[in-house]
Amino acid sequence: MKNLKKLILLTIFTCSAAQLFAQKASWIWYPGDFDIYMSNVMQNRRTERGSFFPVFWKMDSHYVLVDFHKEFNLAQSEEVKLFVEGTYNVKIDGQAIAGFPKSIQIPTGKHKLSLKVYNQAHVPAIFVQGKTIVSDETWLTTFEDKEWIDASGKTSDKSGTTFVSAGSWNLTDPTQLPSQFKLPVKGIAAVSRKKNEGGEVLDFGKETFGFIKVHGLKGKGRLSLFYGESAEEAYSEDKCETLDYVDIDLAVKKDSIMPLSKAFRYVNRQTTGNVTVDSISMLYEYSPVTERGSFKSSDEELNKIYDVAKYTFHLNTREFFIDGIKRDRWVWSGDAYQSYLMNYYSFFDAPTVKRTLLAQRGKDPVTAHINTIMDYSFYWFLGIYDYYKFTGDKKFVQDIYPRMQSLMTYIDGRKNKNGLLEWMPGDWIFIDWADKLSKDGEVSFEQLLYARSLETMALCAKLANDTEGITKYEKQAKELKSKIFELYWNQNKSALVHSRIDDKQTDNVTRYANMFGIFFDYFTPEQKLAVKKNVLLNDQIAKITTPYMRFYELEALCAMGEQPYVLKEMKNYWGGMLKLGATSFWEEYNPDKKGTEHLAMYGRPFGKSLCHAWGASPIYLLGKYYLGVQPTTPGYETYMIEPNLGGLAWMEGKVPTANGDISVFCSKKEIKISSPTGVGQLKIKSKTKPVVKGAKVKEVSKGIYEVMIEKGKDYHMKYSG
Amino acid sequence: MKNLKKLILLTIFTCSAAQLFAQKASWIWYPGDFDIYMSNVMQNRRTERGSFFPVFWKMDSHYVLVDFHKEFNLAQSEEVKLFVEGTYNVKIDGQAIAGFPKSIQIPTGKHKLSLKVYNQAHVPAIFVQGKTIVSDETWLTTFEDKEWIDASGKTSDKSGTTFVSAGSWNLTDPTQLPSQFKLPVKGIAAVSRKKNEGGEVLDFGKETFGFIKVHGLKGKGRLSLFYGESAEEAYSEDKCETLDYVDIDLAVKKDSIMPLSKAFRYVNRQTTGNVTVDSISMLYEYSPVTERGSFKSSDEELNKIYDVAKYTFHLNTREFFIDGIKRDRWVWSGDAYQSYLMNYYSFFDAPTVKRTLLAQRGKDPVTAHINTIMDYSFYWFLGIYDYYKFTGDKKFVQDIYPRMQSLMTYIDGRKNKNGLLEWMPGDWIFIDWADKLSKDGEVSFEQLLYARSLETMALCAKLANDTEGITKYEKQAKELKSKIFELYWNQNKSALVHSRIDDKQTDNVTRYANMFGIFFDYFTPEQKLAVKKNVLLNDQIAKITTPYMRFYELEALCAMGEQPYVLKEMKNYWGGMLKLGATSFWEEYNPDKKGTEHLAMYGRPFGKSLCHAWGASPIYLLGKYYLGVQPTTPGYETYMIEPNLGGLAWMEGKVPTANGDISVFCSKKEIKISSPTGVGQLKIKSKTKPVVKGAKVKEVSKGIYEVMIEKGKDYHMKYSG
Repeated sequence: MKNLKKLILLTIFTCSAAQLFAQKASWIWYPGDFDIYMSNVMQNRRTERGSFFPVFWKMDSHYVLVDFHKEFNLAQSEEVKLFVEGTYNVKIDGQAIAGFPKSIQIPTGKHKLSLKVYNQAHVPAIFVQGKTIVSDETWLTTFEDKEWIDASGKTSDKSGTTFVSAGSWNLTDPTQLPSQFKLPVKGIAAVSRKKNEGGEVLDFGKETFGFIKVHGLKGKGRLSLFYGESAEEAYSEDKCETLDYVDIDLAVKKDSIMPLSKAFRYVNRQTTGNVTVDSISMLYEYSPVTERGSFKSSDEELNKIYDVAKYTFHLNTREFFIDGIKRDRWVWSGDAYQSYLMNYYSFFDAPTVKRTLLAQRGKDPVTAHINTIMDYSFYWFLGIYDYYKFTGDKKFVQDIYPRMQSLMTYIDGRKNKNGLLEWMPGDWIFIDWADKLSKDGEVSFEQLLYARSLETMALCAKLANDTEGITKYEKQAKELKSKIFELYWNQNKSALVHSRIDDKQTDNVTRYANMFGIFFDYFTPEQKLAVKKNVLLNDQIAKITTPYMRFYELEALCAMGEQPYVLKEMKNYWGGMLKLGATSFWEEYNPDKKGTEHLAMYGRPFGKSLCHAWGASPIYLLGKYYLGVQPTTPGYETYMIEPNLGGLAWMEGKVPTANGDISVFCSKKEIKISSPTGVGQLKIKSKTKPVVKGAKVKEVSKGIYEVMIEKGKDYHMKYSG
Repeated sequence: MKNLKKLILLTIFTCSAAQLFAQKASWIWYPGDFDIYMSNVMQNRRTERGSFFPVFWKMDSHYVLVDFHKEFNLAQSEEVKLFVEGTYNVKIDGQAIAGFPKSIQIPTGKHKLSLKVYNQAHVPAIFVQGKTIVSDETWLTTFEDKEWIDASGKTSDKSGTTFVSAGSWNLTDPTQLPSQFKLPVKGIAAVSRKKNEGGEVLDFGKETFGFIKVHGLKGKGRLSLFYGESAEEAYSEDKCETLDYVDIDLAVKKDSIMPLSKAFRYVNRQTTGNVTVDSISMLYEYSPVTERGSFKSSDEELNKIYDVAKYTFHLNTREFFIDGIKRDRWVWSGDAYQSYLMNYYSFFDAPTVKRTLLAQRGKDPVTAHINTIMDYSFYWFLGIYDYYKFTGDKKFVQDIYPRMQSLMTYIDGRKNKNGLLEWMPGDWIFIDWADKLSKDGEVSFEQLLYARSLETMALCAKLANDTEGITKYEKQAKELKSKIFELYWNQNKSALVHSRIDDKQTDNVTRYANMFGIFFDYFTPEQKLAVKKNVLLNDQIAKITTPYMRFYELEALCAMGEQPYVLKEMKNYWGGMLKLGATSFWEEYNPDKKGTEHLAMYGRPFGKSLCHAWGASPIYLLGKYYLGVQPTTPGYETYMIEPNLGGLAWMEGKVPTANGDISVFCSKKEIKISSPTGVGQLKIKSKTKPVVKGAKVKEVSKGIYEVMIEKGKDYHMKYSG
């Protein structure tokens, strides 16, 4: 009886709370559809010297006909405003209202409000705003409601429709249709301008992104804009990667904004005829994410590396995490996977991760690997589990699990007679941009990613309550892992070989499978040490020249405690780009190259992207392996703090979580920690027992101490590092 | 050597022929995409008393990004004009041209011309017009070209892309974008008008379809149009199924055309405020198909039935074969299947069949039966083989075969433990509109259609060279057929029972499985006779009240030579509707009903469609079973003519084929035949040996004679029928 009363009270409280506070409405749609739609918009903005340059994989579409509904129990009748993108009908309790009502009255009591929307061009979307009735992710949607009627007019009561929760981007302005979604912009002036023949070259001071605005345009003739991430590129009118040609016929002065955004530092403005221009500025376009993570240390060069990495990453964080701002602006899964990890140590922006994962996966049927690349399918799986690990958002994993299953079914269907993956028509085996990298036969790296993805499937099957899936994927992962070591481990070389051809190991040893094996924790301790010596720290093994794979190489070394070595490598490699004048980090950097060689790629003199997301990995490495913060259970319910100065005198910074930022200061003598979330486990190496106020210090092994960090407290400890 | 010379000469001739004659270009797209797109447009035109009323199954979309290419070998350089619906790029030999060129010059020699088009709102489509280079169905298309490049800029040479032939509707006007496609219209005046309170009621003399045009509209207030297939419906302002409300504020007179087409005979025009109207006419909208089939006989009532059936069918032949013009205008597979058959005996319009089949099937993944109805999935398979039988168009079968496979895989995945189909969540088991028709358990009718569909798969697998498929489907069909007789044949009842529930036969015998068993030729001769007596001609078995199932019932009887009986039934049933004033045939007709009861259905007083495609079956029955013409090998390469007067004094008519019309005249004493195609086999029952000029007459059994009909000859024979 007591319990029942409590329950009633609780119910009453819940109801009145809902009535007291005006609810927040947002535009909603079939989940994933706006993500797919916007990624089509985004990925079709690429041009190459004025020609349209779209992707080469299948672009999916939103469902063109979507039903939305929710049941409400109203204490009082209320007026509900309806905003819809598409042709629609409205039903209350299954009864249609004539026409396209903009406002309806819902009577008291229990009622079901449904809207059915058709839109071929844009995503069917609704915005419903009443006092208590609002559109949000609690609405249910379907693309096939199966509401047939029998000859008497009775609606089928056993249609077996699958309803799923609506998707949303938290767009809360009913007058702004989702299809009009745009990132914000702000005006920025050039830092300097230099006249040249036929025009001028503007320098915006650093790599930037947005729309060029031409002020006071007048006359008849052509305006040409040649964009350059480097000055050389902007000056090279016949070889620069992006440009605008605009034919002008204006009697009076007019300001004109270029229709397509571009990446540049320099702009070479040229005119023909009697065209004149007063000045040129830009509208900087950016994602309004918050820079939450931070890092500062006793090393100024490292601080600069961190700052430029964060700027590089912010430029590439847009509607989605893209590869690079100049050329593709596409949603590449391998690139995005690194962006997710960087994001957890900088913006901690969960929506952009979800959008990118949804956009990449698209819809069934699966007809190719993600971006057509075998490795990129696997990074997609890994990205989902990481998302759960950092955010604890179980619902998203459950929602996307069916799309994980169908992609894995596609992959499982492509195994060869040995149960391994090798090239099949339609596959691109990428791995990395590297000279003479063999993709023939059964490449060990791909099998490793496959095994890790199967482990991910098993973990997500648990979250999605797919008991059959757990058993199936666990078994498959275990078998593949043991097969990898049976087939690729070479005892003489003490390493995994690169590939098997015609059922035989090749002689080739590369870094890829070996470094992933380390942070996947697939090796025995002995194997790990052998791999470090024989592969990672072995100059005879082909070097990596992309920041993309340096990310994993340095991560593997950090995971083995080689922070001092990695710090030097970071300063050499990223510091090397800074010394060459980089204001953002590059798609590829080979210190052996000279001068304008650094600008070339893909056989084109300015083909290389000088602002590439995968160039920004120091954000991740410094947060995870120097500040040393990482979750040990999903959503930072428990986490580890294991600061490692790696030779620095001191460092300080913040690592964001869903509940706020964890602050860390560490010098050789002092550590300060405060955390708003979960339970942390600080691990310190100290010659003497550290002294901490208000906390117990436990020596877990010789010279290694552990301190439990509770949320909401400030910890300040002395130690001898 | 001689042969080689001949080959060279032939090649030269082919080239010069291509150069001499300007080629015919048409708009092309990814095959099936425009069909899906237009069916979305068509099926989203339904309204019910002013509310938008879309379908309840999944609507698919076109591919939004499509690559088109063709290789040409030019003797002379030529200018090629480009028309594109979408954002696009153009490549010659893989090299992109800047911007969006409207005209390009292709140099002499061998070159590959490619266009890649993005269009979210409409179908990506191109129209290419040069002297010899033209867009047509020989171009290749793909939705994923997988043209990635390596770090050196080299395009992948092993992408394994699947290219398929382009689709087209033979739209040959480059200035008319495919998305603007509309059926033609012509103005028609009302036959009479009658003033009533607040307005007037117009009578167009018979069932018709199109857009109401209001002439000289003026004033402020509301114009309301209430449409009626019957006068009662038009007068019933609060119950008529379709209407238009238009708010008017016009100071000067203006003509106004209603935006949505409607089906009606009567229109009740009402105005409020000071709105005035000069007059009202209509724009009759129609498919420009040619009425090729014909039938005339000594029976005037039968001739009238034939004419009204053909008009009914023409009204329902639109962008696609639809169910009925008033209400749904949807592409229902079971309805369309009958339309295909009627079409082969009237318009012989192959494109409309192909469009409808493509639109119904949509895209993968299959998430439900076609139109959600189990039986409707099966009719779709049957429609494809019939299409091949009548047209001989093997290419279409090969093109659509992959979509046949994926639908059959979906169906095979829904078998129960007995290998049979029964209701599962999401399934609608329709069969027919009939009272108290059980859909529980394993319904025999569905298994029969399943078996026939598997046989169809085996036949189409042969055409598509899928040897594995042939074996698989033949085996599956054979096993299912024998299971049907083992489980459903009841020796006591000498019939197939309606269903099995809990692994046991029910007592129920219905006409459905039994009549299909006859024209599928699944019965032994003894079973056939028993079924005819115990089921088809047995008044104790529930009667059929829809023209939909009467189609098959009468076909089964015709297949058993019961033409005199069927003739009487036709006159009773369709003649019955004519006697009630029908100007087109209905969705349902139960002679037991009275007065306005005939107008009601689905619990609504005017819910019934009075112009339903499935009402038009006499077209088919008279052509196939009275004139007696049908193909015996695909495309009328060989065919049968077996005239059966069924009690008529004489009849004459035409049956269309791909190569022209077969003409038949038959009285009790004379038969005249002429044919432009294949080899026919005329079969006559005659008391004496028929006399035919220029042909051999063979007596195949007592009183049955066969005459071989060669194309291009006229045959005139005397006999004693």
